[in-house]
Amino acid sequence: MDRTYTVEEQAALAKTASYRIAAASRDIRNNALSSVIAALEGSKQEIYNANEKDLKTAEQGQINSTLIKRLKFGDKELNTVIQGIKDLISMEDPIGKTLETRELDNDLILYKVSVPIGLIGVIFESRPGVLVQIVSLCIKSGNAVILKGGKEALNSNAVLYKLIYNAIVQSNKAFENSVQLVETREDIHKLLKLDNIIDLMIPRGSNALVKNIKENTKIPVLGHADGICHVYIDKDADIDMGLTITKDSKCQYPAVCNAAETLLVHKEIADKFLNELKNLLIDVELRGCERTCEIISVKPATDEDWELEYNDLILSVKVVDSTEEAVAHINKYSSHHTDAIVTGNKKTADYFVNFTDSSSVMWNCSTRFSDGYNYGLGAEVGISTNKIHSRGPVGMEGLTIYKYKLIGKGQIIADYADGKKKFTHKNI
Amino acid sequence: MDRTYTVEEQAALAKTASYRIAAASRDIRNNALSSVIAALEGSKQEIYNANEKDLKTAEQGQINSTLIKRLKFGDKELNTVIQGIKDLISMEDPIGKTLETRELDNDLILYKVSVPIGLIGVIFESRPGVLVQIVSLCIKSGNAVILKGGKEALNSNAVLYKLIYNAIVQSNKAFENSVQLVETREDIHKLLKLDNIIDLMIPRGSNALVKNIKENTKIPVLGHADGICHVYIDKDADIDMGLTITKDSKCQYPAVCNAAETLLVHKEIADKFLNELKNLLIDVELRGCERTCEIISVKPATDEDWELEYNDLILSVKVVDSTEEAVAHINKYSSHHTDAIVTGNKKTADYFVNFTDSSSVMWNCSTRFSDGYNYGLGAEVGISTNKIHSRGPVGMEGLTIYKYKLIGKGQIIADYADGKKKFTHKNI
Repeated sequence: MDRTYTVEEQAALAKTASYRIAAASRDIRNNALSSVIAALEGSKQEIYNANEKDLKTAEQGQINSTLIKRLKFGDKELNTVIQGIKDLISMEDPIGKTLETRELDNDLILYKVSVPIGLIGVIFESRPGVLVQIVSLCIKSGNAVILKGGKEALNSNAVLYKLIYNAIVQSNKAFENSVQLVETREDIHKLLKLDNIIDLMIPRGSNALVKNIKENTKIPVLGHADGICHVYIDKDADIDMGLTITKDSKCQYPAVCNAAETLLVHKEIADKFLNELKNLLIDVELRGCERTCEIISVKPATDEDWELEYNDLILSVKVVDSTEEAVAHINKYSSHHTDAIVTGNKKTADYFVNFTDSSSVMWNCSTRFSDGYNYGLGAEVGISTNKIHSRGPVGMEGLTIYKYKLIGKGQIIADYADGKKKFTHKNI
Repeated sequence: MDRTYTVEEQAALAKTASYRIAAASRDIRNNALSSVIAALEGSKQEIYNANEKDLKTAEQGQINSTLIKRLKFGDKELNTVIQGIKDLISMEDPIGKTLETRELDNDLILYKVSVPIGLIGVIFESRPGVLVQIVSLCIKSGNAVILKGGKEALNSNAVLYKLIYNAIVQSNKAFENSVQLVETREDIHKLLKLDNIIDLMIPRGSNALVKNIKENTKIPVLGHADGICHVYIDKDADIDMGLTITKDSKCQYPAVCNAAETLLVHKEIADKFLNELKNLLIDVELRGCERTCEIISVKPATDEDWELEYNDLILSVKVVDSTEEAVAHINKYSSHHTDAIVTGNKKTADYFVNFTDSSSVMWNCSTRFSDGYNYGLGAEVGISTNKIHSRGPVGMEGLTIYKYKLIGKGQIIADYADGKKKFTHKNI
C-alpha cells in the first residue's frame, strides 16, 4: 500500500475486500495459495536474513531461550509451512457448499450455503510460521484477515507479510487489501474496539494473551485461556494402561494445553496405583489430597491446586469415592478442554464421556491426542473452549458460517398469511 | 423448590442439572414434553385466572394496547403452544447425533457427537407463550434454562413455570432444578455477570432489550437488535413484481424485524417505478434521496434515514447507478438480517446474493419470508445477526454444539511423536 492508513482504515479496507474474496471461486483462492508458495520459495534468503535480525535482537535482549527457539524461522520451518499450504490446496473447499435445500412452495426454493465469516483478527506471538499458516487458512476459506504479530518477530513478519500480500494481489486483484498487518501494541487496543467490523478474533499465544483479549473486547474470541486437563483412573482400570496414559498425558510435553494437570484415582485402586505411580514419575512433583498423602509421601495439595495449570512437571492427585465424584470434580475445575478416563468397564466409560462437559473426552487414551492435526482436521485454527460455534480443535470449518438464499418468482408473504397459498416444506 | 435461593445458586443448580439432562435419552425428554402438555391442558382455568390478573393490572397501568394484546394468554394462545410442543415431540432428536466418525489409528476411533450447549439464559417480555415455547425447546434439546419474564406477566409466568416444572420433575427426577425462574429487574444484572455458568443468552423482546443485553454481558448473545432490511429494484426487474414485493416487504406487517426500511432503485428504471410506487403506497410516508425527489414529490431523506428501523409505514428511497452501488449501500447500512433483489437477470441476481453480506438474501421474493416457521425449521429460537454459531432464523440446531469422544485401547502420543506409530486418518 502506498500511504499509511490508520488501524480503523486498514480494517475497513479489509472488510470491503472480504466481500470480494467471499465471492471468489475455489480456483482463484487456490491459485493465490500457489502464488504464496512460489513467493516464499523464491525469497528464502530475504526471509532468513530478516529472521536473523530478529534473532540477534532477541539474543541481545531479555528474551528467554524458549521464546528464541520459537522465533527461529529457517529451512525446516519454511518447509513445514509450505507443506501446510500444499495440504490446504488439496483440501475440499469449505465454502460454497449447499448444506440444505428446501422447497418452501412451488418455485420458492431455500438454499443454506456455507460462506466465510468475513474479517478475522489474529493476534499472535513469536513464531513467524503462524502468520503464514493463518493467512493461508483465511485465503482458502475466503476470509479477510488483519494480523498483529509479536514485536520480537517484527522483521520476519514484515517480510513474510510483504511477500504473501504481493503474491496474492498479483495472482488476483480481488485480494487487494484483504490481508493487513498492524504493528504496535496500541494497535491491539484499537483492533479490540472494532466489534462492528471484525467478526472473529483469534489469539494465538500465551494464556495471559488470550485472557487479556477475552476481557477487553466485544468481538467473539475463538481460543482457550486455560488447559486444565484431568486423567481419571477408575477402579476397573488396567493399572499398566493407567500408568502409561498418566505418564504420557503429564510428561510427553508438559508445556502444552492438552497435558494433564490433575490425576483422579478411585479409592479401590488408589493404594496399588499411587505406589506404582510414585516409582514411575520420579521427575514429577506430586501434590496429593489428604487421602493421597496417607498412601504415598508427597507434598500436600491445597484447594488452589485444583485450579492450576502448571505447564510443568507437577501433577495434583486426588482420591475419589466414585466416578460420579470424579466427573463432578472435573465439571467444577476443568477448563472443559480435554479429560480422560481409564477403565475396562464400558458402562462407567459411557457415564464419564456423556456427563463430562468437555470438548474432548478420552476413554483409554492420552489427553495429548486432542489436536487438530491428530484429529485429521488438517491445519488447525486453534483449540476452542467455547460452547458455541466451534469447540475443541478447530479446523477450517471454524472459519465458515452459512447464509440463506431464497429464490422465488415474485412470492409475497400476504398470500400465505391470508391462507391463499400454503407452504410445502419439502427437503430436496 | 422449598427454600429461596439466590440467582447465583439457582444458576449453579441449573448448571448441575444441565449435565444430567444432557445425558437423558430421547424418550425421557419427549416424555417430559408430553407431561407438560397434560399439565397445561389439566390446569387451563388456573392459567387463565392468573393471566386475567395480569391483564387487569396492565389495563389499570400505563401499558399500551399493543403490549396488552401480547400479554393475553387464552384458549387460542394455549392451543398454539400445545400444538408447538406436539410438533417438537415428533421432530428428529437434535442431540446424540454422530456427526463424524474417524479412525485415527487401529482401535483409536474419534466420534464427533451433537450435544446440548448447557445452560441457556432467556430474558423475554410480555407474551407468556414465549416461556412455554422456550422451555419446551430446551427440554427437547437437553439444555437447562434460567428464565426472566416481564413484570407485566408476573402471574401468568409464575403459574406456567410451576405447572411445567412440576410436570417435568414428576416425569423424571433428572429434570430437578433444570428450569429456573427469576423475577426482578435486579436479577437480570446478576444473570448477565454469570459468564462462567450461563453458556448462551437469548433475549426475546424489543430492540432496546437486546441492545442492552449485548452491551452488558460477556455471555454470548443470540439475537438481533436491528432489522434494517432492503429491497433493491434492478434495471431488469419486472415492474409489477417489484411493486408487489416492495408493498409486501414494507406494509404486510411493518412492526416486525424482516419488514423493509429502505428501497433502492436502479436509475434506468427509477422514473417509471417510483411514479407507480407513489400511487400504490398511498399510506406510506416516502423519504427520498435527491434523485428520488427529482422524480416524485416526497419528503427528502437525511443521511440518518439510511440507518433507521422505522417499524412503521415509512420507507426511505434511494436511486443508485448500479447493482454494485446497491450492494455497497446495503453492506454499509444493513443490519445483515434480510435483503432482497428484484431482477430478471440471473447474473445480476448471483452478484447480489453472493456479495450481500446478510443472513438471508432474497431473489424475487419478499423480505418477510425470513422466519423459522416459513423456512421449515420448526419452532424458532430467534433470528440471529451474529456471524458465528447461528445466523438468520435459528431452530433447535442453534441450541446444540458438539463434543469429541476419542476411544482407544491405551494409546499414547509418545508413540506417534517418536514415529513408532502412524495415524491412519480414515473417515468411517
